[in-house]
Amino acid sequence: MPPFTVDTLNPAILKVEYAVRGELAIKAEEYRVQLQEAEASGNANHGLPFDRVISSNIGNPQQKGLDQPPITFVRQVAALMEYPELKKLAPNVFPADVIARADELYEEIGSIGAYSHSQGVPLIRKHVAKFIEERDGYPSDPNHIFLTGGASFGVSLLISMLISKPHKSGILIPIPQYPLYTATLAQHSGAALPYHLDEKSGWSTSLREIEASLAKAAQDGTEPRALVVINPGNPTGALLDAATQAEIVHLCERHGLVLLADEVYQANLHRASTHPFTSFKKVVRSLGSNVPLVSFHSISKGVSGECGRRGGYFECANVDNGVLAMMYKMVSVGLCPPLAGQIGVDCMVRPPRAGEPSYELWKRETDTIHAALKDRTAVMASRLNALPGVSCVDSPGALYLYPKIEVPERAAQAAREAGKAPDAFYALRLLDATGICVVPGSGFGQKEGESHYRLTCLCPGVEEYVGKLEKFHKEFLEKWA
Amino acid sequence: MPPFTVDTLNPAILKVEYAVRGELAIKAEEYRVQLQEAEASGNANHGLPFDRVISSNIGNPQQKGLDQPPITFVRQVAALMEYPELKKLAPNVFPADVIARADELYEEIGSIGAYSHSQGVPLIRKHVAKFIEERDGYPSDPNHIFLTGGASFGVSLLISMLISKPHKSGILIPIPQYPLYTATLAQHSGAALPYHLDEKSGWSTSLREIEASLAKAAQDGTEPRALVVINPGNPTGALLDAATQAEIVHLCERHGLVLLADEVYQANLHRASTHPFTSFKKVVRSLGSNVPLVSFHSISKGVSGECGRRGGYFECANVDNGVLAMMYKMVSVGLCPPLAGQIGVDCMVRPPRAGEPSYELWKRETDTIHAALKDRTAVMASRLNALPGVSCVDSPGALYLYPKIEVPERAAQAAREAGKAPDAFYALRLLDATGICVVPGSGFGQKEGESHYRLTCLCPGVEEYVGKLEKFHKEFLEKWA
Repeated sequence: MPPFTVDTLNPAILKVEYAVRGELAIKAEEYRVQLQEAEASGNANHGLPFDRVISSNIGNPQQKGLDQPPITFVRQVAALMEYPELKKLAPNVFPADVIARADELYEEIGSIGAYSHSQGVPLIRKHVAKFIEERDGYPSDPNHIFLTGGASFGVSLLISMLISKPHKSGILIPIPQYPLYTATLAQHSGAALPYHLDEKSGWSTSLREIEASLAKAAQDGTEPRALVVINPGNPTGALLDAATQAEIVHLCERHGLVLLADEVYQANLHRASTHPFTSFKKVVRSLGSNVPLVSFHSISKGVSGECGRRGGYFECANVDNGVLAMMYKMVSVGLCPPLAGQIGVDCMVRPPRAGEPSYELWKRETDTIHAALKDRTAVMASRLNALPGVSCVDSPGALYLYPKIEVPERAAQAAREAGKAPDAFYALRLLDATGICVVPGSGFGQKEGESHYRLTCLCPGVEEYVGKLEKFHKEFLEKWA
Repeated sequence: MPPFTVDTLNPAILKVEYAVRGELAIKAEEYRVQLQEAEASGNANHGLPFDRVISSNIGNPQQKGLDQPPITFVRQVAALMEYPELKKLAPNVFPADVIARADELYEEIGSIGAYSHSQGVPLIRKHVAKFIEERDGYPSDPNHIFLTGGASFGVSLLISMLISKPHKSGILIPIPQYPLYTATLAQHSGAALPYHLDEKSGWSTSLREIEASLAKAAQDGTEPRALVVINPGNPTGALLDAATQAEIVHLCERHGLVLLADEVYQANLHRASTHPFTSFKKVVRSLGSNVPLVSFHSISKGVSGECGRRGGYFECANVDNGVLAMMYKMVSVGLCPPLAGQIGVDCMVRPPRAGEPSYELWKRETDTIHAALKDRTAVMASRLNALPGVSCVDSPGALYLYPKIEVPERAAQAAREAGKAPDAFYALRLLDATGICVVPGSGFGQKEGESHYRLTCLCPGVEEYVGKLEKFHKEFLEKWA
């Protein structure tokens, strides 16, 4: 047998699925190259029914075509860290607070070309702890914080540690979920124990669903190790209320579960007065609970949108020192998180304050981003809801909508014949017709027989964008009626 | 049982060991904090017999205290990518070739705050392919290149894919080795199949040793999947000659092995006329071999020394398209390598050329780094060899020396009583007495009964540094005679 073919690989790898950059995204990339090459060769006739690809498959605000501008403060600090001589070479370019911040970080870190402490720069972890303390009103220990190359890295580490018995250890995940969870569970031969969110009540979380999933796991002989909560939700955008959060903590106590709180969208709140964010750290502390909690945050979302830097952190609460030592050992093998990401974390947890030179610009920039996202989400939800056969929860948080679509029976039939889920079939047609790339609901999970797709609310020119979606949808219904 | 203690973790995690940031490095970090706090409190009496910690445990050239300056060209390009407005705001600061490079990258990438293609920016992969073609004289396909967050990331991915049967699949690794390999094998329940390098002949690689390890694996019922070669060696600094490389390729053909070539030190050559570097890609192509080869490179070593950016790449040759698709899928789950690292890769594979504005400074900077490393390695090897009970191969490459030490029997006895390997005992004493942190040979592997340690050749002030090592060694021998 040849030594390196798919048949010879670790079989767990074959089971990994990650729809956000799956078949649709690969095809969209091919279209992008096709358009680029036609343009480069001066050939206006590229043979596609659209002039550009719109990547609504991934929460990537600064990507070309979306072009959400970076926060100036972040980039100024980062540029000074890259090239400290700029302070002298371009003395009037940087505001005093930017220079002070870069000086303070340089004093601690030295060159950003050096590996840092494996857990992340100690001073930046102190700043993260202070941010958490101010957010929650409870102490946070910098030694229990791990800076990471994005939240995904931390989630993957935790899952790899928790799956103690291949195929026998399980982790509760919401359905729909962000497919990082199922992908990482597949990679580490862990069982995904699904609990369904309730679309009718705005994707609320029901304790009864979680208990039912636990009961099924017990029947199957699967040991549940942890419960994943995504709050604000991805792809749903839902926010948990504090009462449900308290019930979740008590459930974890009763069942001996580690609570994994994915809170990367905590700053993306469109209706904060009615749908506020409360961290699980605050809930756990306010209840005096001893539930082990690991909370994840990221610089890729929020108003920062600095996906390419690869930065984030996780905080451990009620986690045994022996386990913390194991985490330290494991992150050491990878040496350290990217320094550019760590600098990004520092800027996220210590933005300019009122009165500081950078504050006004920062405020204007971040207000603009918040407002645009809020407005686009509301407009898109309303227009999608007006379409026949589409219903869409108007997300109070995160960056996405997750509309439900009724795929006509004839289309579903054609999908089955092509070996595809009906929503994947719909999404492929949408891409082929409009250049809009979304992710089919089958990538996130949904109830049997249902169809959804996730799209981001990041695309500017919402009128043109939704117009294309509407036109396609109506034509699709006509064609397959 | 409490839900999250060491006993409840994935048992493979417990078996992971990574000495480079292990017990010694943790203690060194504690000493560093102790010195820092004493200084901050104005208390000159810090209670330690040294005034600073010297981290010789890790190849981290730009870290504080070593302070190898970054290459100006790299940092100028990076600063412009962070804050493109600088082009207008500081028009006279950047040479024309830096601006042209940043413009070209910006045109392709857009904001570095966006996720890139999961495999890395296509244009940068094209540049890597061109670099490889110029180095080897054989074609390279950008679609077979994966940019990574450092070489470690790629190695870990490959090992996770290759270990198809826990505890039954094995990978051949040199002894001594860089402990990333044993750590990652432990994490994925793969068997490490050791083959010993020959210290007497300058750490040469013997085919007989590899065959013997394969024979033992066959006896044990372990299926060998791949052969790791580290060239130039880590920790040995040895360089393979082309004849041995050809034999290794043929051995992989005979045994159906994937060849994993760790070539991250390819630019660190101290005696290139007698000990040149030849890539395995070139050897495989020149032999017309169909052995699947994955070669790793990094921006953390060489003259770049940009560890904190987290950048590198691997190139696949003779790798099946199905396996490439699996690799793409797996890197997609982590979204993309850090953009700062990708920019670093571009600068590494496309340095300024003669005649370009940045060339002279770049040449001076890189020549200085090469010369300092070469000189220090030679001086340190010679001085270490002059010590009683120490012998040290004078490394022709990489960043390290790996001296063998004869630990006096009384010290070995004391070590055993303390539950430590003799070289770990020696290294701990060295740290306690001098603040110098090295890594004991037991972390890299060695023959039964031998003792070594690895130290980097990155520390400036070689006279003071080696002086401390010599003084300690002599006192150690006296104390334990």
